[in-house]
Amino acid sequence: MNWPLLCRLLGLLGMLVGGSMVFSLPWAFPACGQTETFEARGFQALVASIVCSLACGGVLYTIGRRERSSILRKEALAVVGLSWILAGILGSLPYLFSGTERSPGVPMTVADALFESVSGFTTTGASVLNQLEAPDPEAATAAPATEGLPADQPRKLIPRCVLFWRCFTHWLGGMGIIVLFVAILGQLGAGGKALMKREVPGPINESVRPRVRDTAVTMWSIYVALTVLLTIILYAEGMTFYDALCHTFGTLATGGFSTRNASLGYYGSPVIELTIVVFMVIAGTNFALYYIVLRSQHSGRQSPLRARLAPLTGDPEYRVYLGILLVSTLLLTASLYRNELYPDVLTCLRHGGFIAVSIMTTTGFGTEDFHEWTEFSKGLLLMLMFVGGCAGSTGGGVKVIRFILFQKVIRLEIEQAFRPNVIRPLRIFGRTLPGSMRHEVVVYFSLVLFIAVFSWVLLAAIEPDAAWDREGHSRAEKLLDSASAVASCLNNIGPGLGILGPHSNYSGFTSAGKLLLTLLMLLGRLELFAILALFVPSFWRTQ
Amino acid sequence: MNWPLLCRLLGLLGMLVGGSMVFSLPWAFPACGQTETFEARGFQALVASIVCSLACGGVLYTIGRRERSSILRKEALAVVGLSWILAGILGSLPYLFSGTERSPGVPMTVADALFESVSGFTTTGASVLNQLEAPDPEAATAAPATEGLPADQPRKLIPRCVLFWRCFTHWLGGMGIIVLFVAILGQLGAGGKALMKREVPGPINESVRPRVRDTAVTMWSIYVALTVLLTIILYAEGMTFYDALCHTFGTLATGGFSTRNASLGYYGSPVIELTIVVFMVIAGTNFALYYIVLRSQHSGRQSPLRARLAPLTGDPEYRVYLGILLVSTLLLTASLYRNELYPDVLTCLRHGGFIAVSIMTTTGFGTEDFHEWTEFSKGLLLMLMFVGGCAGSTGGGVKVIRFILFQKVIRLEIEQAFRPNVIRPLRIFGRTLPGSMRHEVVVYFSLVLFIAVFSWVLLAAIEPDAAWDREGHSRAEKLLDSASAVASCLNNIGPGLGILGPHSNYSGFTSAGKLLLTLLMLLGRLELFAILALFVPSFWRTQ
Repeated sequence: MNWPLLCRLLGLLGMLVGGSMVFSLPWAFPACGQTETFEARGFQALVASIVCSLACGGVLYTIGRRERSSILRKEALAVVGLSWILAGILGSLPYLFSGTERSPGVPMTVADALFESVSGFTTTGASVLNQLEAPDPEAATAAPATEGLPADQPRKLIPRCVLFWRCFTHWLGGMGIIVLFVAILGQLGAGGKALMKREVPGPINESVRPRVRDTAVTMWSIYVALTVLLTIILYAEGMTFYDALCHTFGTLATGGFSTRNASLGYYGSPVIELTIVVFMVIAGTNFALYYIVLRSQHSGRQSPLRARLAPLTGDPEYRVYLGILLVSTLLLTASLYRNELYPDVLTCLRHGGFIAVSIMTTTGFGTEDFHEWTEFSKGLLLMLMFVGGCAGSTGGGVKVIRFILFQKVIRLEIEQAFRPNVIRPLRIFGRTLPGSMRHEVVVYFSLVLFIAVFSWVLLAAIEPDAAWDREGHSRAEKLLDSASAVASCLNNIGPGLGILGPHSNYSGFTSAGKLLLTLLMLLGRLELFAILALFVPSFWRTQ
Repeated sequence: MNWPLLCRLLGLLGMLVGGSMVFSLPWAFPACGQTETFEARGFQALVASIVCSLACGGVLYTIGRRERSSILRKEALAVVGLSWILAGILGSLPYLFSGTERSPGVPMTVADALFESVSGFTTTGASVLNQLEAPDPEAATAAPATEGLPADQPRKLIPRCVLFWRCFTHWLGGMGIIVLFVAILGQLGAGGKALMKREVPGPINESVRPRVRDTAVTMWSIYVALTVLLTIILYAEGMTFYDALCHTFGTLATGGFSTRNASLGYYGSPVIELTIVVFMVIAGTNFALYYIVLRSQHSGRQSPLRARLAPLTGDPEYRVYLGILLVSTLLLTASLYRNELYPDVLTCLRHGGFIAVSIMTTTGFGTEDFHEWTEFSKGLLLMLMFVGGCAGSTGGGVKVIRFILFQKVIRLEIEQAFRPNVIRPLRIFGRTLPGSMRHEVVVYFSLVLFIAVFSWVLLAAIEPDAAWDREGHSRAEKLLDSASAVASCLNNIGPGLGILGPHSNYSGFTSAGKLLLTLLMLLGRLELFAILALFVPSFWRTQ
């Protein structure tokens, strides 16, 4: 292991994270002059976090600054895995320094802060915070004023600027912190490609442009452009600028953190929901396709819109992705309507469609509490959690392309059982994939399912049964709740069933349970191997 | 597809099933002269079933009798898959003809009978019958005498001889009906080996003897010897001869059908339970190992017992198998004791150990209702369901050897992620396995888990939520119950959680749900491919 190189790269990353925290500062400005208010504490905490991150990054960089050798596959794996862990640790500092409270009177522990931070970067959107804002002015003023806050000020558990940082981590993690890194710092030899390959989701990484840095810049440009667009739309639809920006981060990164206790249900607006649905679908699509569409426009060809969108609409993965979304929306709507959970078909369609898209794209915004829905719809949602978005999107999960490949591999395997001598290549999109792909897809599948089952039983062992003995819940729900927590974190979705539903959250888990779920989020975001390798002793041995 | 060959072999199998039904007749003899009693109806039903099976087999055999060509891989797959389906259909006839009642006054439907019959042959032991015997004499005489039965006769829902047939199907399916077929009828060219390879569980089939028929005869001889031994022991321990024989079938085939409503809990005897535990462990061990141990004894070498047992105790799969059993027994015992479910440690160990062995060896005998246990123990049992016995045993599940191989493959895969140029072969027991094995194990794993998840959601969709609205149950349990039903049937275990626990059963499912579970039992018993191939259109095309 080339330690100096590792230190240099991790140092740069630490400084990058520290630098990006600066963007959260403006939201604390009205309060920064004061020393008493809760918001001012948030400002101080952020400044302290920035200093810590820069210092940590600086020290690491200094250690390895003389190292100029190019990055190898092994180091790429280590850098990616460790970068995300480092980002998670540094990102948790604002929560810890600001004394953010998990629920009234209970400050966040280290495990809580780490969970929240990693949940942000991995675009999971799972939270341990019970109250993001004072629920309503009346209730807020009625709440007892503890810890020296003036009695007339609504009781807030998390400062505005830290709340912004929470949503901002989604945005950074969505397109990938390594990709951002490459885009800003330029090429890192052949290793840049290896780095990005480990971070951009999906088994097939097509470089849209020949140079790695150009690819990274292109991806981030599209991402920024979409961010600007959605922020403007949401602002026009009646959100405050702050809310519009935060919800845009949550949507385009397929994260799911909101600034409201009731998530998007707060607005109760079908127009906002429809906008978010459209952009969640956009965020779950392969970003390389957008580049291809845009390039064909730039080349000056004058053609009708349909022909221009052909690279997108003709993509088999995109079609299957839309197909699954459509079918699951219809199934959910039918199940809701047949059981008369909502008065009319349109309301069923609205809620069924929103939740189906939110879960499958691994965003996790909530409008309705789907724990109250039928058992079939819960089972369906749990399965959708594993599907995820397209390769090269910001969505998590197993990815649609892997399901297409898996189905093809299984067909070939069945045929091989009765025609052992016929060897067919694995083909997709009209091109033949390397033989190793056939194996890799199946390994990924079995490993994801195996990790899910194993962590599930481990989580059930860690959590005491008594935690479920509260109003509206029963022990009988524990195993299903745990299964959905594992599926939700491993696939970077966020909400689960039962005590983890969109209106409840992960705060009830023990610290050990939270750390396990944090690990699952990292495993899911980096597609297993960059994290699994860190646990193999021979990985660290110099050879 | 060579249809005449298929007909000839299926015809022979039909006659074999019909012939084996004869063994159930003696248990109806005391009643066979009468025409009125319930037992006499069982006798008539069995005779009718034998005639039907022989006729069906005879017709099929006549169609293909001139076909003498040797069997190919494709036909082997078709014969194995279709044989088990045919055996399931023929085996269901005694239930249908005898008018066996699922619960008082409700006769079995075709789906019920098929479920029960396939559950028998695949050694699953899942049942739809609510009452095997009059619960106790008092209650029996108090029950209303319907359908012309004399009022003083205890109300029985299933005749003795049909009940025997039910347990006997376990015994036939345990070692394999195709293996029996090969043992009785002799070699079928090179195809005999291909046939057995599809039926004997596990990825590595070692032929213990060079000729296929000899292997089959050896396996069945060991099986018969163990059967005789256990029957004598159980008889000596106080069971009636009938009960001893039926429970022996259930134990050695790792099936789990009992002749008592309370399964083995009826006896409440630690001695009987311990005997059954030992023989369940024996039945879950690779039978080839017993042959090797026996042969080394026959060769006249005089050595201490330990040296003679070396092939068994030195086998890595056997060691891991015992290790998992031990660890899960301890975990269950600890969980039970900590939650004070039983008064003392010994009782916890007794029940924890029995259920752990019963579930992991895929037998499914019940003593205690583990649905009342802690949530962790339920999760652990659900995971143990997938482990199963050793390859070459009568146990179902994924098999221990596949877990060992899977773990090795994943290690190699992780290493490959950071050392792409180092290619290591897959080694086990000191020998190198073919490269294709590396792929096959992972395919099997992912396919089993995928089928389990998919069937689970399908079952949740088929079954109405309202079925769970009864005393002592809630809708919240539906998904977990369905998951355990799928896991239990796919791995040929029998009991599940909740409404499927050892004291309850599958009778509440809809016909469509029962047929789905029946399919899963067949998939699990034949290790997927022999059944999956039947659904591929190109399989049936002549080429």
